[in-house]
Formats: sequence, C-alpha cells, structure tokens
Amino acid sequence: MTQVIEKQSGTAFRIKKGQKLKVTDPEGGQVSDMVLFNAEDKREKISSGKTLDFEESILITKGDFLWSNRSNKMMKILEDTNGRNDFLLAPCSPETFKIMYNNNEYHPSCFENLYTSLAQYGIEPDDIPTAFNIFMNVQFEPDGKLSVEPPLSKAGDHVLFEAQMDLIVGLTACSAEDSNGGSFKPIHYEIMD
Amino acid sequence: MTQVIEKQSGTAFRIKKGQKLKVTDPEGGQVSDMVLFNAEDKREKISSGKTLDFEESILITKGDFLWSNRSNKMMKILEDTNGRNDFLLAPCSPETFKIMYNNNEYHPSCFENLYTSLAQYGIEPDDIPTAFNIFMNVQFEPDGKLSVEPPLSKAGDHVLFEAQMDLIVGLTACSAEDSNGGSFKPIHYEIMD
Repeated sequence: MTQVIEKQSGTAFRIKKGQKLKVTDPEGGQVSDMVLFNAEDKREKISSGKTLDFEESILITKGDFLWSNRSNKMMKILEDTNGRNDFLLAPCSPETFKIMYNNNEYHPSCFENLYTSLAQYGIEPDDIPTAFNIFMNVQFEPDGKLSVEPPLSKAGDHVLFEAQMDLIVGLTACSAEDSNGGSFKPIHYEIMD
Repeated sequence: MTQVIEKQSGTAFRIKKGQKLKVTDPEGGQVSDMVLFNAEDKREKISSGKTLDFEESILITKGDFLWSNRSNKMMKILEDTNGRNDFLLAPCSPETFKIMYNNNEYHPSCFENLYTSLAQYGIEPDDIPTAFNIFMNVQFEPDGKLSVEPPLSKAGDHVLFEAQMDLIVGLTACSAEDSNGGSFKPIHYEIMD
C-alpha cells in the first residue's frame, strides 16, 4: 500500500530484515532524505563514511549496500531507475537556510522533519547522521567543488531497498528549494514483504 | 613543544578556543585522522556532511572551516602546505582490514586508536564520527569511483588549525597500509597560544 509523505514533511517507521522499501518520486524532480537506525540498538546507524569506504564510490546506486557506523550492512539497493543519489551533504537544517541562503525566517527542513518524526523512537536531534539523499543531484568537479542541481528523476522513478537488519527508518520529502529546483513535491513509499 | 604520535597509534587532548594546533608529517607520506568534540558537550562533534555542505567542496583546505553536527564552526584551517586532505572515508577499523583486505588477524586501526585515546573523556566507539583525514590522498573520478593513493605530503608538511571553541581532539598516526603507501610513520603535533 503506497504511503504519501506530503511536501516539506517527513515520517518514520520500522521495517524488518528481508522486507523491501520502495521510495518513489511521483512527480519527478524531488529529493527524499533517508536515515537508518538498528531497531535493536539505535546507537548503530547509517554511515556515509563507512558506505563510501566499503563501496569505493561517491555515487551509491543499484547493487550497493548502505553500511552502518559498526561496519554492518543495513540496506541493499535492488533497483534504482534514476541512478543519481547523494551521500555527501547533511540534511538541510534551519542553519542551512541561515548560513547558505541568508534566510533568518522559519523554514521547514529535512533535519527538523527527521528528528520530530524519529522522536517517538527516542532518537534526538544530535543522533541524526548524514542522510542518504535519494534522487539528490550533487555534482562535483575535479577540483572538489560541489553544486546542488535539480534532481534528474522523472515522474515514477524509484529506488528499491532490501533491509539487511530490523530497522527504524526516517524519510522526508525535501524542504530545500535548491535540492528540488524550487518546486516542493510529495514522496511516495511502500513497504513490501 | 612538539609532541610525537608513534606509528600506528593515537592520542587525545583538550585545546581552548583561539589556540592553534599544528599537525606535521615529519617524514612525508603519512596520514593523521582527526576527530573533534565540543569540550562542553560531547554530543556536538565534527561533521563531514555539514562541512562539505557549508564549504561547498569535497576538498577542505586553507581558509575553510571544520563544522559540527550543530552547524557551528569548530576549527579554521590557517595553513595547509600540502593541500590534500580527505573528509569522505571513515577511519580505518578492524572491519576495514577484514572486509577490504580480507585480513582476519588483529590489525591496529585509527578507529581503535581514536576510541581508546578518547575513553578518558567518556567518548565511546559509537561516538566516533567520520574523521578529517589530514594528508590523506583519496582520488575521485567523474563517475564517483574512489581510490586511496599514497599521500602527497613531503617531510615537514603541516596543517595549522585554529580552535573556534573549546575542543577535545582525537588524533592518530594512521595504521592502514593503503593510506600511507605501506610505510608506517609517526605524526608530530604542537599546541600554540
């Protein structure tokens, strides 16, 4: 059954080892930040540094695993119809909009949407790691310069994950103008046995 | 006064806001992993995801800041005579040698050297984030593929940091063959007012 994450919001849920999670961009051009915690011990969580090390790539896609800070596999990517995701940049936060965009007004953010959704599991703001940013299109130059470009995802593109352990998942429909070309859109997801 | 970190070992210490930390590669071709914690609240720590986001680059060097998970500046890089550092890969750990090198024997690692050195401050293995890997030479291709190459640092190359808050610092002389071209060497450091 397809669940909807409304624009600029987030959710959290459990999935069991062996279950699959399908994350879909229903309209195209939207980003979904995902964080993972071991459901049995929340101090084990998704790690960008471990994943890039073990997969030997900046660009994580079909066939790759998402690894934890304890060097365990958390998810396997079974399908990736778009093929571009980011695992370099932290979730957008109130400070992102302040520091990067000089916006001092309240702005929704993936960081807030993750920690408020995950609070029910006893996860606090300081526990939120760098997220796996599904569909996010961060380009890098040979000199290392990074730029956040509009996602390349088309309507209906999806990434299919298989849980490698029992997990708590935090998932958003991104709140940052830069990440989704200025258009705020929902994200769909489905949990399958 | 220059302090010596012997090959394949690590240390931890406090420095105060405004003090400078000089990390030197005395023989050339060696890597030093550095992690940072707010001395007043250890749940605030160095963040690769925040640093790459705010500095808009994979390659962090002179003029850049190292940022925390709470979006605060922890260190400023005042000097960097070599100019190549890595902030993508997690510290080498026992699992690195097992998974990447198929080595099931005991092997010293930056991860172990960081958490044993930091235990005196109540910091545990799960608290160790992706480190700022001084002098580490990780090359990336346009397709995202990563390779760990011998450091480009020459004897006497150094990076000079200025603390932006009171910090607990963990620092190593790297234990991984791949990171330092198979030659294990010491690292020198100096704290200056």
